[in-house]
Amino acid sequence: MPQSDFLFSIGKRLSETTAAGEGLHGRTGTITTPHGEIQTPAFIAVGTKATVKAVLPESMKEAGAQALLANAYHLYLQPGADVLDEAGGLGKFMNWDGPTFTDSGGFQVMSLGSGFKKVITMDAAAASEHAGADDRVAVGKERLAHIDDDGVWFVSHLNGDRHRFTPEISMQVQHQLGADVMFAFDELTTLMNSRGYQEESLERTRLWAERCIAEHERLTTERADKPYQALFGVIQGAQYEDLRRKASRDLGAMNFDGFGVGGALEKENLGTILGWCADELPEAKPRHLLGISEPDDLFTGIENGADTFDCVSPTRVARNSAFYVPDGRWNLSNARFKRDFTPLMEGCDCYTCTHYTRAYIHHLFKAKEMVSATLISIHNERFVIRMVDDARAAIEDGTYFDLKAEVLGRYYAGAR
Amino acid sequence: MPQSDFLFSIGKRLSETTAAGEGLHGRTGTITTPHGEIQTPAFIAVGTKATVKAVLPESMKEAGAQALLANAYHLYLQPGADVLDEAGGLGKFMNWDGPTFTDSGGFQVMSLGSGFKKVITMDAAAASEHAGADDRVAVGKERLAHIDDDGVWFVSHLNGDRHRFTPEISMQVQHQLGADVMFAFDELTTLMNSRGYQEESLERTRLWAERCIAEHERLTTERADKPYQALFGVIQGAQYEDLRRKASRDLGAMNFDGFGVGGALEKENLGTILGWCADELPEAKPRHLLGISEPDDLFTGIENGADTFDCVSPTRVARNSAFYVPDGRWNLSNARFKRDFTPLMEGCDCYTCTHYTRAYIHHLFKAKEMVSATLISIHNERFVIRMVDDARAAIEDGTYFDLKAEVLGRYYAGAR
Repeated sequence: MPQSDFLFSIGKRLSETTAAGEGLHGRTGTITTPHGEIQTPAFIAVGTKATVKAVLPESMKEAGAQALLANAYHLYLQPGADVLDEAGGLGKFMNWDGPTFTDSGGFQVMSLGSGFKKVITMDAAAASEHAGADDRVAVGKERLAHIDDDGVWFVSHLNGDRHRFTPEISMQVQHQLGADVMFAFDELTTLMNSRGYQEESLERTRLWAERCIAEHERLTTERADKPYQALFGVIQGAQYEDLRRKASRDLGAMNFDGFGVGGALEKENLGTILGWCADELPEAKPRHLLGISEPDDLFTGIENGADTFDCVSPTRVARNSAFYVPDGRWNLSNARFKRDFTPLMEGCDCYTCTHYTRAYIHHLFKAKEMVSATLISIHNERFVIRMVDDARAAIEDGTYFDLKAEVLGRYYAGAR
Repeated sequence: MPQSDFLFSIGKRLSETTAAGEGLHGRTGTITTPHGEIQTPAFIAVGTKATVKAVLPESMKEAGAQALLANAYHLYLQPGADVLDEAGGLGKFMNWDGPTFTDSGGFQVMSLGSGFKKVITMDAAAASEHAGADDRVAVGKERLAHIDDDGVWFVSHLNGDRHRFTPEISMQVQHQLGADVMFAFDELTTLMNSRGYQEESLERTRLWAERCIAEHERLTTERADKPYQALFGVIQGAQYEDLRRKASRDLGAMNFDGFGVGGALEKENLGTILGWCADELPEAKPRHLLGISEPDDLFTGIENGADTFDCVSPTRVARNSAFYVPDGRWNLSNARFKRDFTPLMEGCDCYTCTHYTRAYIHHLFKAKEMVSATLISIHNERFVIRMVDDARAAIEDGTYFDLKAEVLGRYYAGAR
């Protein structure tokens, strides 16, 4: 299929609908993929191993999920990208007929090796949620990944086997996985790396981006019978304005369908860094912000020009019985919920809140019943998806900053 | 509500629709409860702790489940029967609007104490499935239950607290749980007990049955604003014909709404023992066979007059990746399923088989993803429910023994 099967059209710009939006890159839009449209800004739910943990795809659709994101590293190791290819691609394999994304696996390959943690979230507990449960095996162990100019040697966290990822292999794997949106293979750095190393790494990521595009174009031609898969470049550059701007200009000039903004982002600088990138990137292409779901981060991302986001938090915290309400994130294991026959959140339109009480799910969690993770995950996904949906509507009708003040004021005042 | 809200009407007798049914007690029928009808014979799915493990209620409905059975022992300990009462009863608590059953908890109270195992199933592995996962904590530990004429002292498997169940307490607990069908509190014996002990125990169970009815009638009057809950007596007597017949006559003469046949049943004698009971019990009342789901046991139960069955096996074996096909029970963890893009069972109409492949669920199981238990459980429940539904239809149209020969011939030839 031709590249024109992937389209992005801008709806309203935040700077057009409200005076306070002056100078900001926020906008609404529509991403069109071979498997349907995504109205942006949109929260993309994560199904790392081709399943949203504990939740069936129909429940995700009912929760308002427009697209799902899986992980190339995990699926490459198990069951193998060729299995998904033979199955007809990620969406068909997992019974999800909407748009799909795959992360390149670069983050997992390298974070497993260095004990790296993203530092974009509000606290240490939340930060740890960004690393997969499996990722934690790396903590305190020998370095499992080795980076050279050609690619990365890494060791499977499953069985210790040695594997090689290069930009070409990542593209081959992601073409086999068959998602609508793929990410280029990039090197991740941390805030601890020296300025000199950041420059060296950024140049490597630039060269890898060119190789990703070349291999992607070759594979797109070779597999012309398959639906077109869009490729997003990934902007690195840590906390350095000149590096972020350079990376955005360099990759922005390449034939990418969109861009991811990744790497080491301090929470306080998230909006500033994203703004630098959006300044330089071509406005007509979508931008994805990797690993974000905290309300303040979402609003920061949206107003600074991110169109899509993904994060594992809604399901991860659910498995520990944490649920979102407008007043913050609460823990359902607390004994005060034992006889609380109200829904997780008053007024919530999700399946869980319209059919179950806190008392019931508290009981399930205490009884170690799997359905507790299912029910809380559905609510949490709906909560975050709806928040981003609300922000989209508010950009359209010029009330974005009113919504932001109301949501964040209540959320961070009430968290307990 | 009045007792007449619980009704049983016989449809066709097996002895009427086929010559080979002569002398057998099998029949079809309809049980009417305040929460709807059950077409019998029917397989009642088990949701021990007010949840079918890993499966949402809507999925159970879609799988054809007509009713669910929960356990009074587990719910008494956690979250407490009063919590369910306050929630509006078991069905409302767990979002199941159809008929519900509760087991009396007698089995769990006593099996936790003695390491008792039912021996009605085909092999040791299957037999162990009848004991709850939590029940296994009793193995090799000191005896946790002590029986006297008034009731049972037992120790919570959760925290070691000492508790007392008597016939009256069991009725109070089950009235609070609020299921449509409850079971009388009985003493379980094993095949290892002496004839003398069986007689002594059976007399105790008879006296307890009278006390259950008295307390049940008192509670029904006291809670007249609640939907009527039916009470089934439980027939014990181990392998002894005279004891089974006596128990059936004794309890059959009491004001029970139906009967459960329980206790120590050797697989080879299941039909014979059930036949003795059905000979003596009032024909116009329904009979429940506790803890049965193997195909041969189901057919034996159905033709010998059992109207309903329950068993945890479909979900328990699913969590170990075992799934039913017409040729037996297979294990999906086998590597041969890695690239098997067919459904769990060709032609199966369940949600799992119409949306997923063996390859996908094999991957989920290997990846330790919860959704594997969900998907296999849905299929297994549907498989057993459909088998009993097919038997019901076959009784109606006179083809029961043809169906039985076909199903069992294939199943036990093909099991691997």
